[in-house]
Amino acid sequence: MIIVMKHQASDQSIHAVTKYIEDNGLQVHLSQGEEVTIIGIVGDKSRLSTENLIIFKDVDRIVPVTESYKLANRKFHPEATTVKVGNTSIGAGNLTIMAGPCAVETEEQLMCIARAVKAAGATILRGGAYKPRTSPYSFQGLEEEGLRYMQEAKAETGLSTICEVVSLDAIEAAVKYVDMIQIGARNMQNFILLKEAGQSGLPVLLKRGLCATVDEWLNAAEYIIAEGNPNVVLCERGIRTFETATRNTLDLSVVPVLRTKTHLPVIVDPSHSTGSYRYVAPMAKAAVACDADGLMIEVHNDPAHALSDGPQSLTFEKFEKLTNELRPFCQLVKRSF
Amino acid sequence: MIIVMKHQASDQSIHAVTKYIEDNGLQVHLSQGEEVTIIGIVGDKSRLSTENLIIFKDVDRIVPVTESYKLANRKFHPEATTVKVGNTSIGAGNLTIMAGPCAVETEEQLMCIARAVKAAGATILRGGAYKPRTSPYSFQGLEEEGLRYMQEAKAETGLSTICEVVSLDAIEAAVKYVDMIQIGARNMQNFILLKEAGQSGLPVLLKRGLCATVDEWLNAAEYIIAEGNPNVVLCERGIRTFETATRNTLDLSVVPVLRTKTHLPVIVDPSHSTGSYRYVAPMAKAAVACDADGLMIEVHNDPAHALSDGPQSLTFEKFEKLTNELRPFCQLVKRSF
Amino acid sequence: MIIVMKHQASDQSIHAVTKYIEDNGLQVHLSQGEEVTIIGIVGDKSRLSTENLIIFKDVDRIVPVTESYKLANRKFHPEATTVKVGNTSIGAGNLTIMAGPCAVETEEQLMCIARAVKAAGATILRGGAYKPRTSPYSFQGLEEEGLRYMQEAKAETGLSTICEVVSLDAIEAAVKYVDMIQIGARNMQNFILLKEAGQSGLPVLLKRGLCATVDEWLNAAEYIIAEGNPNVVLCERGIRTFETATRNTLDLSVVPVLRTKTHLPVIVDPSHSTGSYRYVAPMAKAAVACDADGLMIEVHNDPAHALSDGPQSLTFEKFEKLTNELRPFCQLVKRSF
Amino acid sequence: MIIVMKHQASDQSIHAVTKYIEDNGLQVHLSQGEEVTIIGIVGDKSRLSTENLIIFKDVDRIVPVTESYKLANRKFHPEATTVKVGNTSIGAGNLTIMAGPCAVETEEQLMCIARAVKAAGATILRGGAYKPRTSPYSFQGLEEEGLRYMQEAKAETGLSTICEVVSLDAIEAAVKYVDMIQIGARNMQNFILLKEAGQSGLPVLLKRGLCATVDEWLNAAEYIIAEGNPNVVLCERGIRTFETATRNTLDLSVVPVLRTKTHLPVIVDPSHSTGSYRYVAPMAKAAVACDADGLMIEVHNDPAHALSDGPQSLTFEKFEKLTNELRPFCQLVKRSF
Repeated sequence: MIIVMKHQASDQSIHAVTKYIEDNGLQVHLSQGEEVTIIGIVGDKSRLSTENLIIFKDVDRIVPVTESYKLANRKFHPEATTVKVGNTSIGAGNLTIMAGPCAVETEEQLMCIARAVKAAGATILRGGAYKPRTSPYSFQGLEEEGLRYMQEAKAETGLSTICEVVSLDAIEAAVKYVDMIQIGARNMQNFILLKEAGQSGLPVLLKRGLCATVDEWLNAAEYIIAEGNPNVVLCERGIRTFETATRNTLDLSVVPVLRTKTHLPVIVDPSHSTGSYRYVAPMAKAAVACDADGLMIEVHNDPAHALSDGPQSLTFEKFEKLTNELRPFCQLVKRSF
Repeated sequence: MIIVMKHQASDQSIHAVTKYIEDNGLQVHLSQGEEVTIIGIVGDKSRLSTENLIIFKDVDRIVPVTESYKLANRKFHPEATTVKVGNTSIGAGNLTIMAGPCAVETEEQLMCIARAVKAAGATILRGGAYKPRTSPYSFQGLEEEGLRYMQEAKAETGLSTICEVVSLDAIEAAVKYVDMIQIGARNMQNFILLKEAGQSGLPVLLKRGLCATVDEWLNAAEYIIAEGNPNVVLCERGIRTFETATRNTLDLSVVPVLRTKTHLPVIVDPSHSTGSYRYVAPMAKAAVACDADGLMIEVHNDPAHALSDGPQSLTFEKFEKLTNELRPFCQLVKRSF
Repeated sequence: MIIVMKHQASDQSIHAVTKYIEDNGLQVHLSQGEEVTIIGIVGDKSRLSTENLIIFKDVDRIVPVTESYKLANRKFHPEATTVKVGNTSIGAGNLTIMAGPCAVETEEQLMCIARAVKAAGATILRGGAYKPRTSPYSFQGLEEEGLRYMQEAKAETGLSTICEVVSLDAIEAAVKYVDMIQIGARNMQNFILLKEAGQSGLPVLLKRGLCATVDEWLNAAEYIIAEGNPNVVLCERGIRTFETATRNTLDLSVVPVLRTKTHLPVIVDPSHSTGSYRYVAPMAKAAVACDADGLMIEVHNDPAHALSDGPQSLTFEKFEKLTNELRPFCQLVKRSF
Repeated sequence: MIIVMKHQASDQSIHAVTKYIEDNGLQVHLSQGEEVTIIGIVGDKSRLSTENLIIFKDVDRIVPVTESYKLANRKFHPEATTVKVGNTSIGAGNLTIMAGPCAVETEEQLMCIARAVKAAGATILRGGAYKPRTSPYSFQGLEEEGLRYMQEAKAETGLSTICEVVSLDAIEAAVKYVDMIQIGARNMQNFILLKEAGQSGLPVLLKRGLCATVDEWLNAAEYIIAEGNPNVVLCERGIRTFETATRNTLDLSVVPVLRTKTHLPVIVDPSHSTGSYRYVAPMAKAAVACDADGLMIEVHNDPAHALSDGPQSLTFEKFEKLTNELRPFCQLVKRSF
């Protein structure tokens, strides 16, 4: 943390700042240049609401020099993390394809989709049993019944499984049935849920919030890891901008940005971000090309009758075509699936 | 719901759409113009995932003609709602001033602030006992202990009280101690929490999400009201944009927009939105001038040592000066406080 | 300019940075703390592309400590500027109301609007003769003919006049007919036009770009002032965000922000920002309440037949009602109109 | 154009709308359903400011059913356009790589960069001679002298050339020296410049504005084509969002979106969008993978001493490594370079 004082700050103003810092048990490193005075803070800054210093007289700005997240920070963990999910792993030379319906609707529907995505190369089956919907009158999911179908689909196909959770109840149910839990975009800063996910023992897929900065996203991951659960995977799913031609704007450059800032694996969801099945294939290829660790793709046996997100779901045929097209891209980036 | 078909859509395409609608138990109103064919849907649309129709051949676009929120919609409830909170009311010619610290820190701190804001004209005491913080290492609040101090402050000053809640546990505690609960921006689409807030029986202040549209915000209110709790107050607290000169961008024009769309009262938070005490007074006056029903303002006895949000907190002196300056503005808009 | 080096930056890295700075004729102020090394740059930074330093080894970040705009900067010109426009002035205790049609359509139309806005209290007549339109097939303005009508309206009513300019040709024509020129949002970073406006000798109303930061806006003003023309007035007209309930999001908190950063007057356009006549009056009052120096409001004799921006135009009756309602707000903020 | 009337609109309101339309020489197609009345407009809508209809009584919303751009619209020109630039072509199975310095600095600098990018596979040399800079005190370019160096570089290397233009003067100079002109992001809605570019006879690279929607971008292209110049290439260069980890947010999903809406070629600029050389290679690969027609990449012999945009410039070594890595991606998407 560095405090930049205003040009011609008085000695009195400088003293007020240094005294405040020292009174909070920290040390000061003072640097008085001709044009500007800079005050560095040495020691454990967590004792101090350093943001408050902005209201001191003659303080021009406060510059943080360290990120607030530590466990998720690549600086302190240079090795890339691999996260084990059921009988597969995310990271380490894999391209993980998670596929399945937005919402689990019936046992038959899920089973038939599971077989199809398995055949086309997916290793993790996704399926929503608890659906956070904008309107209270939309289909909200089958809840525990949906989780049981996921377990059955795993038993039959051998796919690992992931489900979104929205509450402690949902986490407690998910622990019994699936291999990985997902925190959705709207809950990325539901800090209570993050802590409970951290305590669940299951690996966690953490989707980026609709308008979350990279810094906020990694702090959300920190909440999970701080509970003793290092198995966090990040998922870019589009951010909200002024553009309405796509549902959200897929921020693919966040993939290389995250590589420099964190050791956690990063996957990309081209279905939710674009909102249209037409754009899923090109964006999936782009995600592989910029070295994402995996993809989350919505697949449905009958998109026209899907209870949720039909417009962005791929048919079996389109999904199989896509995975076939992805294979040579994977070879180029030296990933296997 | 209107389906606009593409120019020169085939009869076959039109038939596929009308059949799909009728198969779902709804009626079709077909209008074939020279340039364009329009298909209206008549009946209870909740049976149908109408968004799916976009993937049908020759469908150009889908135009919703009704909002998905009903109970929060001014169309169906033309009369403005007044919400009773403890011994005061929000709406109906009042300008409600909620004031207090971002976080409850100690009993003495809260009591001294409560007395000061009461003396200056506030009618509701705010104070955070559960703090959703970006970093897990920041101060997270006193929890139930903080709620008890709120109760004591109410007993001594007669102020009504409001606290943010972040979980079912927090709601259950809040019901015992305070008059109103707040759902924060980061939980605006935590639908489980919204339902629990709806069931609590307490009036709810619903803050706008950081990047929530008006439509999403009113659907979030709908979740609460649909549980049988009509006592919802909306709070504009700034949205996230590219501008960094303020913490967020206060969207004041949402006040008259909400008047046309909903019957719920609307208050404005100039503290969180701007992030700086310097901008609180002008934006508070602007909010009154455009006819907001109230203000939520952070006040602290010693902002430099506040455990949360010191930079945007007003001192007692500044807060009293502001309420004095607000009185003649209130007269102009015919509101009392 | 401060260079913050990475934790444990090598002596070699530090030397490379200091050598680069000194080789460019500047001086270095080195501050080596226990945790972090900071390098201050002393001297005329314009000789150096300081942004390049970010690519040097072990450089963590670059922190500018001074704004790049000087002439528009309140630090160097603490006194608020008043800008004379024809026979009126913007700033200094006035509330300037600019009103008129979006586009000048006919002589009769303009004359009749001019009389009406004059009667209701406006002091400057606005009217577009050169219209920047999204589509090449929309009405593009009467050009010089429109400017002549503006001159006639001035002669008859005594109102001062303002017109938008979009090219050097338009500036050269405007100089002959009107009192003030306007640079529109889409041209805020048309630096050639800014320079030509600076050389025109006329006062300039500089609208904020659709997604311009405060810093970019003041740098655009700097382009005009650097040509020897200090008569610049800023106009907030809404920024682009994800919200679609209004055409743009009016950023009213920019008014107090600009007060701290610049000495230039600031006016607010509630017509273009909201895009609907319904929201003009509340936002006009809010703008006055937060101490804007003026308002720009679209008024039309027959909004239903306006060639541009009918939906946001006030009728004569609504405009007169608004100015009457604004008077007591002006008294509260001690401004006259 | 469709007018959706409010539920229970009166006959009088409906009549007022239909009369207005017919009075403007257009025909009405009326569709009265049980729940809603819809009014279609038949004929040449350019005679009518249809947006005005929103202010008529009982009008709920106006739904455009056709885009305002025609010449740039894929609906009317299904075949993809190929644009010839000097001795090369953009589109039609090529991956065009434009490379060079942000700003032309000296003859030697440009010549040495030209040789290097040619050797690595670029076919078009970029170099800025007119630089639109945020601050008036930054380097503004060598102007015509820079264009002459471009011509010399072309003569020696055989590369085609492109330069940004910012004024009519610049266009007139560019016509003499280079093969293609560029309209930068800040001038995307400088409609005068667009028209002049259309009249220049040279192919035009049109960069997307910092916060331009797809619709606005294609309307800007329409301005150029409407002057009789069909040789327009679009360039995605990042949009402005709340995220600050990159300079802008590269919107790669705009590539497949544009494929459905326009027949014009689309290239991607990973340098300006990310603002850091570290992210150029992954985003270049992603752009190729999602089928962009080309790339614009900044290359500099000595980024640390570049007069503009050093941080995002590739060294010769990094650029050559990148083009080598791109070749197999090109094979996958069946493009050659």
